[in-house]
Amino acid sequence: MKHIVIINGANLNLLGKREPLIYGNESFEVYFERLKTDYQTDVRLEYFQSNIEGEIINKIHEVGFVCDGIILNAGAYTHTSIAIADAVRAVTSPVVEVHISNIYARESYRQHSFLSEVCKGSIVGFGLNSYRLAIEAF
Amino acid sequence: MKHIVIINGANLNLLGKREPLIYGNESFEVYFERLKTDYQTDVRLEYFQSNIEGEIINKIHEVGFVCDGIILNAGAYTHTSIAIADAVRAVTSPVVEVHISNIYARESYRQHSFLSEVCKGSIVGFGLNSYRLAIEAF
Amino acid sequence: MKHIVIINGANLNLLGKREPLIYGNESFEVYFERLKTDYQTDVRLEYFQSNIEGEIINKIHEVGFVCDGIILNAGAYTHTSIAIADAVRAVTSPVVEVHISNIYARESYRQHSFLSEVCKGSIVGFGLNSYRLAIEAF
Amino acid sequence: MKHIVIINGANLNLLGKREPLIYGNESFEVYFERLKTDYQTDVRLEYFQSNIEGEIINKIHEVGFVCDGIILNAGAYTHTSIAIADAVRAVTSPVVEVHISNIYARESYRQHSFLSEVCKGSIVGFGLNSYRLAIEAF
Amino acid sequence: MKHIVIINGANLNLLGKREPLIYGNESFEVYFERLKTDYQTDVRLEYFQSNIEGEIINKIHEVGFVCDGIILNAGAYTHTSIAIADAVRAVTSPVVEVHISNIYARESYRQHSFLSEVCKGSIVGFGLNSYRLAIEAF
Amino acid sequence: MKHIVIINGANLNLLGKREPLIYGNESFEVYFERLKTDYQTDVRLEYFQSNIEGEIINKIHEVGFVCDGIILNAGAYTHTSIAIADAVRAVTSPVVEVHISNIYARESYRQHSFLSEVCKGSIVGFGLNSYRLAIEAF
Amino acid sequence: MKHIVIINGANLNLLGKREPLIYGNESFEVYFERLKTDYQTDVRLEYFQSNIEGEIINKIHEVGFVCDGIILNAGAYTHTSIAIADAVRAVTSPVVEVHISNIYARESYRQHSFLSEVCKGSIVGFGLNSYRLAIEAF
Amino acid sequence: MKHIVIINGANLNLLGKREPLIYGNESFEVYFERLKTDYQTDVRLEYFQSNIEGEIINKIHEVGFVCDGIILNAGAYTHTSIAIADAVRAVTSPVVEVHISNIYARESYRQHSFLSEVCKGSIVGFGLNSYRLAIEAF
Amino acid sequence: MKHIVIINGANLNLLGKREPLIYGNESFEVYFERLKTDYQTDVRLEYFQSNIEGEIINKIHEVGFVCDGIILNAGAYTHTSIAIADAVRAVTSPVVEVHISNIYARESYRQHSFLSEVCKGSIVGFGLNSYRLAIEAF
Amino acid sequence: MKHIVIINGANLNLLGKREPLIYGNESFEVYFERLKTDYQTDVRLEYFQSNIEGEIINKIHEVGFVCDGIILNAGAYTHTSIAIADAVRAVTSPVVEVHISNIYARESYRQHSFLSEVCKGSIVGFGLNSYRLAIEAF
Amino acid sequence: MKHIVIINGANLNLLGKREPLIYGNESFEVYFERLKTDYQTDVRLEYFQSNIEGEIINKIHEVGFVCDGIILNAGAYTHTSIAIADAVRAVTSPVVEVHISNIYARESYRQHSFLSEVCKGSIVGFGLNSYRLAIEAF
Amino acid sequence: MKHIVIINGANLNLLGKREPLIYGNESFEVYFERLKTDYQTDVRLEYFQSNIEGEIINKIHEVGFVCDGIILNAGAYTHTSIAIADAVRAVTSPVVEVHISNIYARESYRQHSFLSEVCKGSIVGFGLNSYRLAIEAF
Repeated sequence: MKHIVIINGANLNLLGKREPLIYGNESFEVYFERLKTDYQTDVRLEYFQSNIEGEIINKIHEVGFVCDGIILNAGAYTHTSIAIADAVRAVTSPVVEVHISNIYARESYRQHSFLSEVCKGSIVGFGLNSYRLAIEAF
Repeated sequence: MKHIVIINGANLNLLGKREPLIYGNESFEVYFERLKTDYQTDVRLEYFQSNIEGEIINKIHEVGFVCDGIILNAGAYTHTSIAIADAVRAVTSPVVEVHISNIYARESYRQHSFLSEVCKGSIVGFGLNSYRLAIEAF
Repeated sequence: MKHIVIINGANLNLLGKREPLIYGNESFEVYFERLKTDYQTDVRLEYFQSNIEGEIINKIHEVGFVCDGIILNAGAYTHTSIAIADAVRAVTSPVVEVHISNIYARESYRQHSFLSEVCKGSIVGFGLNSYRLAIEAF
Repeated sequence: MKHIVIINGANLNLLGKREPLIYGNESFEVYFERLKTDYQTDVRLEYFQSNIEGEIINKIHEVGFVCDGIILNAGAYTHTSIAIADAVRAVTSPVVEVHISNIYARESYRQHSFLSEVCKGSIVGFGLNSYRLAIEAF
Repeated sequence: MKHIVIINGANLNLLGKREPLIYGNESFEVYFERLKTDYQTDVRLEYFQSNIEGEIINKIHEVGFVCDGIILNAGAYTHTSIAIADAVRAVTSPVVEVHISNIYARESYRQHSFLSEVCKGSIVGFGLNSYRLAIEAF
Repeated sequence: MKHIVIINGANLNLLGKREPLIYGNESFEVYFERLKTDYQTDVRLEYFQSNIEGEIINKIHEVGFVCDGIILNAGAYTHTSIAIADAVRAVTSPVVEVHISNIYARESYRQHSFLSEVCKGSIVGFGLNSYRLAIEAF
Repeated sequence: MKHIVIINGANLNLLGKREPLIYGNESFEVYFERLKTDYQTDVRLEYFQSNIEGEIINKIHEVGFVCDGIILNAGAYTHTSIAIADAVRAVTSPVVEVHISNIYARESYRQHSFLSEVCKGSIVGFGLNSYRLAIEAF
Repeated sequence: MKHIVIINGANLNLLGKREPLIYGNESFEVYFERLKTDYQTDVRLEYFQSNIEGEIINKIHEVGFVCDGIILNAGAYTHTSIAIADAVRAVTSPVVEVHISNIYARESYRQHSFLSEVCKGSIVGFGLNSYRLAIEAF
Repeated sequence: MKHIVIINGANLNLLGKREPLIYGNESFEVYFERLKTDYQTDVRLEYFQSNIEGEIINKIHEVGFVCDGIILNAGAYTHTSIAIADAVRAVTSPVVEVHISNIYARESYRQHSFLSEVCKGSIVGFGLNSYRLAIEAF
Repeated sequence: MKHIVIINGANLNLLGKREPLIYGNESFEVYFERLKTDYQTDVRLEYFQSNIEGEIINKIHEVGFVCDGIILNAGAYTHTSIAIADAVRAVTSPVVEVHISNIYARESYRQHSFLSEVCKGSIVGFGLNSYRLAIEAF
Repeated sequence: MKHIVIINGANLNLLGKREPLIYGNESFEVYFERLKTDYQTDVRLEYFQSNIEGEIINKIHEVGFVCDGIILNAGAYTHTSIAIADAVRAVTSPVVEVHISNIYARESYRQHSFLSEVCKGSIVGFGLNSYRLAIEAF
Repeated sequence: MKHIVIINGANLNLLGKREPLIYGNESFEVYFERLKTDYQTDVRLEYFQSNIEGEIINKIHEVGFVCDGIILNAGAYTHTSIAIADAVRAVTSPVVEVHISNIYARESYRQHSFLSEVCKGSIVGFGLNSYRLAIEAF
């Protein structure tokens, strides 16, 4: 059974409340319960969210040498954090980058990711379904 | 009676000690007491400061759906934090950006603000008086 | 009693007629009469508008050594006129920059102001209320 | 009968005298008389020229709510004037941008026009014939 | 009788089906028939369309030494093809660039044309009418 | 049963022969047979490859109004073709962008995609598995 | 006897009052009287100043076909006015550019001159003496 | 005996007709016959030309695993085609880039080549003689 | 006896585990014990590490008015944090910047440091020895 | 009697032989003799030329603490040498920059001078007469 | 018999010792002897090397009016020296630029040459063979 | 006993005379005598200074294969010389870059070093003490 950790970054705790036209109406907690049920025979799923860049780094350090994979949606830190990218580089578990919205169809400063380069792959723009595709990718 | 929250970011806890030629001699705590007294009949003022980017986001989430306005001086995070800008975008309370010094007369990397675009308005360069004008603006 | 001069630049004579979604429905003349009434005991308000860059400079020269303050909304010249910025630099009266709309949420070429650097402070995005906050700032 | 106003900007009063290899030998006044004759049954043509940016704005304001169309060759102001672009945006008459020479085959600073974006269309590079095509376009 | 060739580039075969808010509802074939009828006494009109950059070059080579004029709307190749610009430069027939929509009011990467510099002139933003004005220009 | 079309662009016919360290040893034809078998009950898969930019556009026009989805790996045209992006924009079938290698960990000129902005989503860096995830995404 | 016209642009009417550390204490009128006396046997000197860009253009048109030389200090218009540069290009009298202060040791936006390229020569940084050297240059 | 393939790109079929001041008067076919004669004992020369980017890629694929060398003058595609550069990278035969004119003394957009980086070497600016030097280089 | 505080930033807690080719095999804790022993007669050494930007700022505030020197290796925050630079600027103890690896021989985004400008000096590229040289520098 | 040293840089020994359309026909040696004669009662003139950047620095060091002024035409080193600019900054004699041709009307890489900022003033574009005006300036 | 001078710039005296993977094992002196032998009936070859930019200029001046051709490999000065480019422009002998390594496949600052524009042609990337091809080119 | 060579570049011979606020009052010769005395039991120190870029290269070639280390302060050549960087790359002795002043707190053109990338490490901003730390580093 695989151990996969989903790490969400800044403002993703507001999912369902925040700009529903872009991010949808469902909270991540509800969605996560469905994910856990669907994959219960094959995958042990764990979930972590923080708005604090350094706590995301701490979590990557904690699980990044022992779990089978990390699904990382760093939110806006995607575009500004070399420190999270260094954390991904430093650990041994493979990391997949996901985004709910199509970041390439939005503001120009959302079109560069420091994480894409150090992740195994990226899945962008399929709504919450992006997480499910990332689980499939492992 | 209006509920307005002042949120100060990085290094603003040092006000009065730090580079007094630019920022003045008065600590923000002393100034804040005067503000509270002056507006006690009309406004319930609350004050929060943190040097941690993510705690500023947490505070915006906490008060941004219930208070009548936020006055935000994010300090240096003004120029680097898309995550705080996203938090402002995500909440429903109006946010006014203030700066004590005239950021446009300083280093070039202080001349772009990620927050200006998502705030209702900006008040820049009037010393501590900038906060008072922001209260007037609500 | 303070003598404060409001100087409006290009296209602001059309206020109330021009793009009302951005600039509102009220003409500046009507608004100015209300301002004069409200501050009649403390401030002598004067108003000048021109679409000609050099006439704005002439006016700044004329009043900038004798009045107590200038409130300057240069319109589109904000973004192109080093000459007006030099005029502000040359006179001794303090100048406050105001904008009706939030210029930072508009086209990229409206996001740089040659005037911000040389003015005492800037008030941006509060509709016609920006002028009132500027009077308060003096 | 349509009322169309031709507005010429900086240095276009020198047409016929100035750099004839680029702009041709004919003065605009002579050319305008021919235009008036040719279109006398269908179009009332009016002509205005100024080297002063603000006077061009004033003219656009004056005719831009009442005439059927403006043909605008702002000369070098094409490349520097956000204020004229704002005037075009502010009025209700449609505006067509014309240039005598092919500005795209000249200096790099002549290859960006602030006006193209706000005009209905652009006609560039056909000599004085550009004006005639613009009248046809209405 | 003049021989004029209209050459349309990428995606213009979809005219009438593609983004009608920008490009209108009429297919080019229907419009072309009307054009031929209207100019039948003065102009022999020929029409060519291809989505393949090199076939556009081949057509320019084929007709560019023998016809009286080319009307070229290269579609998106306008912004990326130095090769088509070289073809225009290489032939002896004059070429007029046309665009249906106002490319200067759209995405930034549509605001530079490699063709403008080498064409006789440009007509931009008048809908299908742009082609008619180009015929008038010859 | 869904009809999904895979369109591969420049140089992808060499898969298995070309730079195997980056692209792997398997030819796309062999891989495609396996895909067809795996999804034979749910999806009718079709495959098209061309090195000619305009033929890719032609194929998108042909299937883009009738199939249920397009999986597009345009190869190097990803980074240079506004014309293919326009074709995607013009049709009604949803398009998913895939890449075999992690383009964000390679040369800087491979880090911008004209297609991402107009596609529904992007799947990047999972080897040939990227195509499978794209089918799942529909 | 030579006829030389000195044309001063924006804010130079304030000379002697404005930022004396940079521009010195003497008004231009007083200095001009001395110049006229010193050169009275050889040169007929004329002086014109305006803060209005278009009036500077008008003056260049007026004298630029009949005088023996123009000494042009356009002030801040030096850095923004393609229109004045076009006027210089259009006339036949040689023009020499002068600046009182060393513009190359000041703000970056003062380090590009649209006029240098079209003038016969430039004399920069010698205080009011720059005008005298320009007269010598003729 | 070596097998060397010369591949010419966009507009090089017009050699001798096109801008003779830059490219000379001789057609490539005539020149190629002379080349074949001169090297008939040592080299089997083959020639291919196309204006279609993808056909150049097809030809590189066809001969790039079997011949002893390719001499590639991609014309304007040199400056825009990542796809041709990928084709060069993909094949095993060494490729030498040639240009007839000195591209570094021409327009700025002709001064970057996507091909130089992936070719064995470049020979630029010796007229048709560049091809002969390339044969010598093998 | 001098009081010197070593502050390490993001991911430096992984030293010895992370990318040993670049950063070496030794953990910082082991190295720090050796440092303390070597300097025990002259220097009181203190050590702090955090992955959270704001906690680094807090530590600088705490010790920056009382200790004799700070040795700061902010890790990836070096390249993104104006807030830490402001903290350094705000305190009175001198700060020396150190880096283990030669940041100038790595990715371009690691080649700018917001801290260099505000520190007393920088020591870069000597492995863990960089810290020892920094102690010598005090 | 003043002691003024003229220092000429790269390629200026070829004056009279090199590109006479730009630089004129006269050798600097001949011209220098005339200069010495004309100023023999007031100025002791000395002349030095070298094509070696470091020898120009050596000369500036040698005379820059003892002479009354340096006239410096560094030739192409004007645009690339921070080291010569540092030498000018280091010495106490005032330095005037001269150029024979109008560098602002030439290649873009000739339009920035590292020397202008550190010299007392610049005289550009008056042919060999530029040197004479520089002597007048002292 | 032709007189051709080979001029080598910075660090090329180390050929054979320096980074042999890029530059090969042979010293230039040994290679030059072979060249002289091979061409002894047709060409008088001369060789000059210096690490001093100005001595390269001196050599170009010395031979550039009398020899039949110069083969110039300026080493790193290729990318920084406008002064050497000016020397090439100033003399009358044709100059061919050569490079041993493919500079376009190396660091970005090696991809611009100030010399390409002023030389007759360039030969890049054929190892020491580049010199031989340059002799052939004359 | 180690053999270490200190190489100083442009203008460093003026140390003690030049801008003492930035560089201090002591001449390097006096300082060097003290260094030699302090390290006489462990290190054989040698000193070389030149203002000529190529002589610095010659010296690096001379000692760079035989000494134990080079301490290099190239002065302003730090920011412009790819040739010196190539010399460092070419030799086998390790090189440490030093700067007396904090170059990162000065003009923007002093903030990039071509040498940092190829040196073992950099020590910046400790006054003359920087040299002493560099000796310690070996």
